[in-house]
Amino acid sequence: MSGVKVTRKAESRIESGHPWIFSSDVAERGQAQPGDAVRVLNLRGQCLGVAHYSSTSQIVLRMLSRKDQPIDRAFYLARLQAALKHRQHVVRESDSYRLVHAEGDLLPGLIVDRYGDYLSVQLLDQGMDAASEVLASCLEEVVQPKGILARNDVPVRKLESLPLVPKVLSGELPERVPVKMNGLSLQADLLHGQKTGVYLDQRENYVAAAHWARGRALDCFTSTGGFALHMAPSCESVEGIDSSAEALKTATANRDANGIKNVTFREANAFDYLAGLAAARRQFDTVVLDPPAFAKSKTNMDAALRGYKEINFKALKLLQPGGVLVTCSCSHHVNEGTLLQLVAEAALDAGKTLRVLERRAQAQDHPILLTVPETLYLKCLIFEVL
Amino acid sequence: MSGVKVTRKAESRIESGHPWIFSSDVAERGQAQPGDAVRVLNLRGQCLGVAHYSSTSQIVLRMLSRKDQPIDRAFYLARLQAALKHRQHVVRESDSYRLVHAEGDLLPGLIVDRYGDYLSVQLLDQGMDAASEVLASCLEEVVQPKGILARNDVPVRKLESLPLVPKVLSGELPERVPVKMNGLSLQADLLHGQKTGVYLDQRENYVAAAHWARGRALDCFTSTGGFALHMAPSCESVEGIDSSAEALKTATANRDANGIKNVTFREANAFDYLAGLAAARRQFDTVVLDPPAFAKSKTNMDAALRGYKEINFKALKLLQPGGVLVTCSCSHHVNEGTLLQLVAEAALDAGKTLRVLERRAQAQDHPILLTVPETLYLKCLIFEVL
Repeated sequence: MSGVKVTRKAESRIESGHPWIFSSDVAERGQAQPGDAVRVLNLRGQCLGVAHYSSTSQIVLRMLSRKDQPIDRAFYLARLQAALKHRQHVVRESDSYRLVHAEGDLLPGLIVDRYGDYLSVQLLDQGMDAASEVLASCLEEVVQPKGILARNDVPVRKLESLPLVPKVLSGELPERVPVKMNGLSLQADLLHGQKTGVYLDQRENYVAAAHWARGRALDCFTSTGGFALHMAPSCESVEGIDSSAEALKTATANRDANGIKNVTFREANAFDYLAGLAAARRQFDTVVLDPPAFAKSKTNMDAALRGYKEINFKALKLLQPGGVLVTCSCSHHVNEGTLLQLVAEAALDAGKTLRVLERRAQAQDHPILLTVPETLYLKCLIFEVL
Repeated sequence: MSGVKVTRKAESRIESGHPWIFSSDVAERGQAQPGDAVRVLNLRGQCLGVAHYSSTSQIVLRMLSRKDQPIDRAFYLARLQAALKHRQHVVRESDSYRLVHAEGDLLPGLIVDRYGDYLSVQLLDQGMDAASEVLASCLEEVVQPKGILARNDVPVRKLESLPLVPKVLSGELPERVPVKMNGLSLQADLLHGQKTGVYLDQRENYVAAAHWARGRALDCFTSTGGFALHMAPSCESVEGIDSSAEALKTATANRDANGIKNVTFREANAFDYLAGLAAARRQFDTVVLDPPAFAKSKTNMDAALRGYKEINFKALKLLQPGGVLVTCSCSHHVNEGTLLQLVAEAALDAGKTLRVLERRAQAQDHPILLTVPETLYLKCLIFEVL
């Protein structure tokens, strides 16, 4: 295993428990080749652990272990078995979940999603890409899938100079995979588009929303209907809106496959539609906001924060005392404190007093590491209007 | 209703949703008498709402409503009915809960705890003290208790120049009240000491801890055995330690009344005992830390933070991969972010990598208001050692 020397700053970053070493903190790349597992050395040559090396990314090293250990089949197998064990403890009433959540499972650069009998894998750095065969072999041993697809068309692979072409690693993949989630039957599209139409990270938040939801409910950015269909049994009626006709086609199919009668879907821009509802003095008992990430980078933060505040303000205008607001943000750059603050400002502007019912994150199969704040990316806050 | 004029600063504080106005932000006290409900006026004489007035406390006004409305029996009855309705939705498998959580139920200065058929009331300001008769009458209407005790011996009443003598407001109070919590039978002592021996605010955290707990468990600061007894069914064995022999007597009685066989209690100082266990290289699969508030005021913060870090470090030393740490803080002055940071430092010192399993607060019958950070006081974090 070749060695890569890092600066004192990188050393203290590793000691603080973070797995990423940036280009500016690498002192000597030595003989490291793209995708190698390398020994990470401090300036005195002491080994700080092992990492995957990337020759092109700003993140040059992603720590795999703080021990000086071989990165071989046994290493990957043990990590994957530990990942599965955690899911066996935390996933209920669902045959689909994130089996490997990169840093959250001490496997940076690797995401594995299980949809029933099939796996969708993302190899996000040169190291995991180079390990694709051994990973596929380990995954076959651990969960015996009928097929493994590598979704190699995710844009972040560009930063690693990796090809953007999906690849079947083993078995065969059907056009649509039937999925069970919280007792609902859904359809996942593993082959096409960037999204499967099934949002694994909201799995537990769907249940929480259904627990609090009541009366007439509105689900904004419903996409394929996740929140709307989960809330249907607790509500009189649910209206789901989204700007994508394609997503709503799947939402409608999901609804009908589950024999749900009290949910309607409508193609609309959420901002405009909410404004129209307020102008018409329409009222709801429950409103869900699950927008796409407004803040995709730090550069458009101001606009993103205004967007979150505006949409929460508009939603709160539709709610009376006893009403429930479920508000989400999947922007990495908007932390829970910021989102709470934005909702507080929106509530004051809307003249509403809010009780905090729940402060939630992504489902437990997307684990959070204490020393890696990036692993907490999805916020889901639930409020009651007093 | 007399009027109290407040400064522009107080006005903007009220507008930001906080219910407290401090002495320095009161412009004219007018004719207000101790415990009066008063109209709160800005410098131009416009009404900002109504509040309870205190003649001696630093907190002169506690907002009851942002509307200009009478504070009469109908007002209290409506607030108490709303409080009960919330508990009917959030309390499960327990006949005991906090029925009124002061600001969290828009009734600052009032705490009402229900233990089975009995109520323990805290009247924490002059306004609620003056309203004690109407409050007792409303509580009788809302929950028909067999007895209502006013725990008027809580020290904070000194700041209000109120007498520190407990008082039976209605009915009769038995020596011990039998309580059901999460299926366990416990005994509450409503009459003696400051604590009843039943911790309502940890009710949901007990269930969460029991969900994750496994193997050999250690419950530090167990007091009357709350975490230990809840974890017993999930664990091989549980050791509960506390420095109070008196509390452990109740813990043992609680254990035996529930026929629990795998829990032992031991009188010990947690810091010393944990150090002894580490020295003896003892290991546990689960450790619970539920210490009393180390940070009682902002002045002893440094020592308190060192205390939290030290005890978490010592606990982590006992845990191996797969081990579970449940760590609590009920200090108002230590927020969740600070506690997460302290545990992260302790984990790095102990050489452990932690996954965040849950970030919890007090049970839902102690509601949190978005714009009143003080209402979130209990933090309960659950980690797994990777």
